[in-house]
Amino acid sequence: MMRMVDLIEKKRDGKPHTKEEIRFIISGYTSGEIPEYQISAWAMAVYFQDMNPDERAWLTEEIVQSGDTIDLSAIEGIKVDKHSTGGVGDTTTLVLAPLVASIGVPVAKMSGRGLGHTGGTIDKLESLKGFSVEISNDEFIRLVNENKAAVIGQTADLTPADKQLYGLRDVTATVNSIPLIASSIMSKKLASGADAIVLDVKTGAGAFMKKLEESQELARAMVEIGKNLGRNTSAVISDMNQPLGNMIGNALEVQEAIDTLKGNGPDDLTELCLTLGSHMAVLAGKAADFEDARRQLEEAIKTGKALEQFKIFVSAQGGDEKVVDEPGKLPQAAEHVTVAAPRDGYVSEIEADEIGTAAMLLGAGRATKTSEIDLAVGIEMHKKIGDQVKKDEPLVTLYTNGQGVEDARAKVLESYTISAEKTEKPTLIYDVIT
Amino acid sequence: MMRMVDLIEKKRDGKPHTKEEIRFIISGYTSGEIPEYQISAWAMAVYFQDMNPDERAWLTEEIVQSGDTIDLSAIEGIKVDKHSTGGVGDTTTLVLAPLVASIGVPVAKMSGRGLGHTGGTIDKLESLKGFSVEISNDEFIRLVNENKAAVIGQTADLTPADKQLYGLRDVTATVNSIPLIASSIMSKKLASGADAIVLDVKTGAGAFMKKLEESQELARAMVEIGKNLGRNTSAVISDMNQPLGNMIGNALEVQEAIDTLKGNGPDDLTELCLTLGSHMAVLAGKAADFEDARRQLEEAIKTGKALEQFKIFVSAQGGDEKVVDEPGKLPQAAEHVTVAAPRDGYVSEIEADEIGTAAMLLGAGRATKTSEIDLAVGIEMHKKIGDQVKKDEPLVTLYTNGQGVEDARAKVLESYTISAEKTEKPTLIYDVIT
Repeated sequence: MMRMVDLIEKKRDGKPHTKEEIRFIISGYTSGEIPEYQISAWAMAVYFQDMNPDERAWLTEEIVQSGDTIDLSAIEGIKVDKHSTGGVGDTTTLVLAPLVASIGVPVAKMSGRGLGHTGGTIDKLESLKGFSVEISNDEFIRLVNENKAAVIGQTADLTPADKQLYGLRDVTATVNSIPLIASSIMSKKLASGADAIVLDVKTGAGAFMKKLEESQELARAMVEIGKNLGRNTSAVISDMNQPLGNMIGNALEVQEAIDTLKGNGPDDLTELCLTLGSHMAVLAGKAADFEDARRQLEEAIKTGKALEQFKIFVSAQGGDEKVVDEPGKLPQAAEHVTVAAPRDGYVSEIEADEIGTAAMLLGAGRATKTSEIDLAVGIEMHKKIGDQVKKDEPLVTLYTNGQGVEDARAKVLESYTISAEKTEKPTLIYDVIT
Repeated sequence: MMRMVDLIEKKRDGKPHTKEEIRFIISGYTSGEIPEYQISAWAMAVYFQDMNPDERAWLTEEIVQSGDTIDLSAIEGIKVDKHSTGGVGDTTTLVLAPLVASIGVPVAKMSGRGLGHTGGTIDKLESLKGFSVEISNDEFIRLVNENKAAVIGQTADLTPADKQLYGLRDVTATVNSIPLIASSIMSKKLASGADAIVLDVKTGAGAFMKKLEESQELARAMVEIGKNLGRNTSAVISDMNQPLGNMIGNALEVQEAIDTLKGNGPDDLTELCLTLGSHMAVLAGKAADFEDARRQLEEAIKTGKALEQFKIFVSAQGGDEKVVDEPGKLPQAAEHVTVAAPRDGYVSEIEADEIGTAAMLLGAGRATKTSEIDLAVGIEMHKKIGDQVKKDEPLVTLYTNGQGVEDARAKVLESYTISAEKTEKPTLIYDVIT
């Protein structure tokens, strides 16, 4: 008979688990037969002894099997999902969904609200009056087949083993383990029914992985899991030494996404969306190669096809698509407060986490599950790393309805470092792993 | 505020704990404020990252402080305790107590019954009709001051943190960690009121530590903890590739102890007792050096002083001291069954654990806390490693009252390896660490 204590010892001693052992561990944990004190000791042993590619794939599979899985087979074409490993001001999903849909890539997105600096994708989309993700599964599939893009709220119980395991890892200092992170992320993508996956792995001071080598290791681990489980997977390593784009907030990010689809978005957000979108198009079989994909996407922006796709997507789910041409219809904050540069110089550092926290203080994000979000508030950044600033010139604008302004201002000032010497703009795309 | 998750991370990353952190962990664990799943993850981090000498001493101190401590200050002289790290057929305590007491070393022994191949020291002493360890603390101290030796049953709640931690380590594959083993053993000795400690660390196939290097590392760790906490400590590394002495059983070991005190004991048991006793005498300040101590102990055996001391000790606690001169008064097994050598050759291996299990099958030990022990039964070994044997010559005699004979015989035959080539007798004392 298998005993958990023997499996902990095996991993502790650096020996690989069999598929049956991984199944025993995950099913025993979720059923409550294996106590948390054994799982946490095992997770710490995994932290030190790692897992080989087989173990990682089996672990991912078992986590997928612990809950519901979404069947997207009724949707035509290769369903490509995108996942970003977090960061601040990440508006890529709002841009990518209509952008790749406009060249024929089906986007069937299940999304949540979540905690954080700003709301989740659903909160952001609800800035568009009338937009609803409360649609049936049949309706969802019909919409993707018709319009190539739809978003549904998360109703199914996906990967409960991951939630349970993550909760335990969070309080036992075992979060930061490549095989455990990689299987956690990949299990969610697989359970959501993706045929292929593009990963946007952030690196830098504002990311979960601060060092490029670690980000590359995580990206390689996830790509390998995907391939071992029959899902074509690519990963782009992108910069999170400062927030991406200029806007942090819900309606503000919708506006920035619309600007980007019009071809007027910030350079970094536009470039990252074109890169991720190109990989998605290639995996979906909608482009011969990366260059072809990129050309198609640039064309879709230039011709207005991408923007038109966004309107179709929004109105199909009850949203007011006129917002696209009249941004004043988005929720508007009552006050605009500028935070001025305290001295002359060059922006050399922006702590992304701190800027995110400032946005949350203004009311843009949820601190707890029951917090109310103010969709109108947030931050617009006027200066980013490498930019020259003069004393009293605006660094950012706070969009506020009165809440948390002074705390947010202090956080913003803390997060900016202004140096006498000129600093280079950070690289945006560090690596691509396929 | 201190948070356990941060302390796990600290240890995980190889950083040393402060004294306050160790206190927080142990007191939080025993009070139930820190859950077991955090302690087990921490223990696994300790397994991989070790502890420095300060951390080990602090951990030992905190475990001591978790429960009662025995105050032996009313006993004159330096109280030296001895601890053996387990093994099979370990009769040293029964020999050592009267032996060192006879040259003036005070022996104040708190003892238990315990689980295992044979009973604990108390069970063995109860083979002497009338012997009782149910004495008051005052009586115990009076007896040690008068007779230099007494044994009391364990009444106080010593080192509850150790029991709790050991129970958790046992099911999370974190037993085998030098700092955790060393602090566990040393905390019990310190809580029992020892001024100085002599450790008998076993090494070899039948010991907890199979490799000499590991045994040396454990011994060094314990000696260092003792010294850092103001207790002069020495360790002797002795062989456990086969059982020590020839007898395994309760009354049988008492008889072997008496034989040894008479100068007629097996060579290995006699030699180890003289070695451990000499270190005890030196630490107690009863000898100028090791050679002087050894000379005194050999003299005490030769003159009958050690045997006389045993009689005094036994009768003071209500036992029948006439047993010493008439061994037939000890509990006697009904049958003696010999197990014969299956072939000619040399004994090259004896699995000590298997021989111990054979004794337990005959009824000499407890499998569970409520099992009854048969004091009369056990095993006498006629052949040990290096001895020549002829086919059908007795390897061992089973002393039995009818229980488990065939199973015990099978275990004995499994445990003996008889080879064609001559094998050297194993070294008895590998190292001394002071």
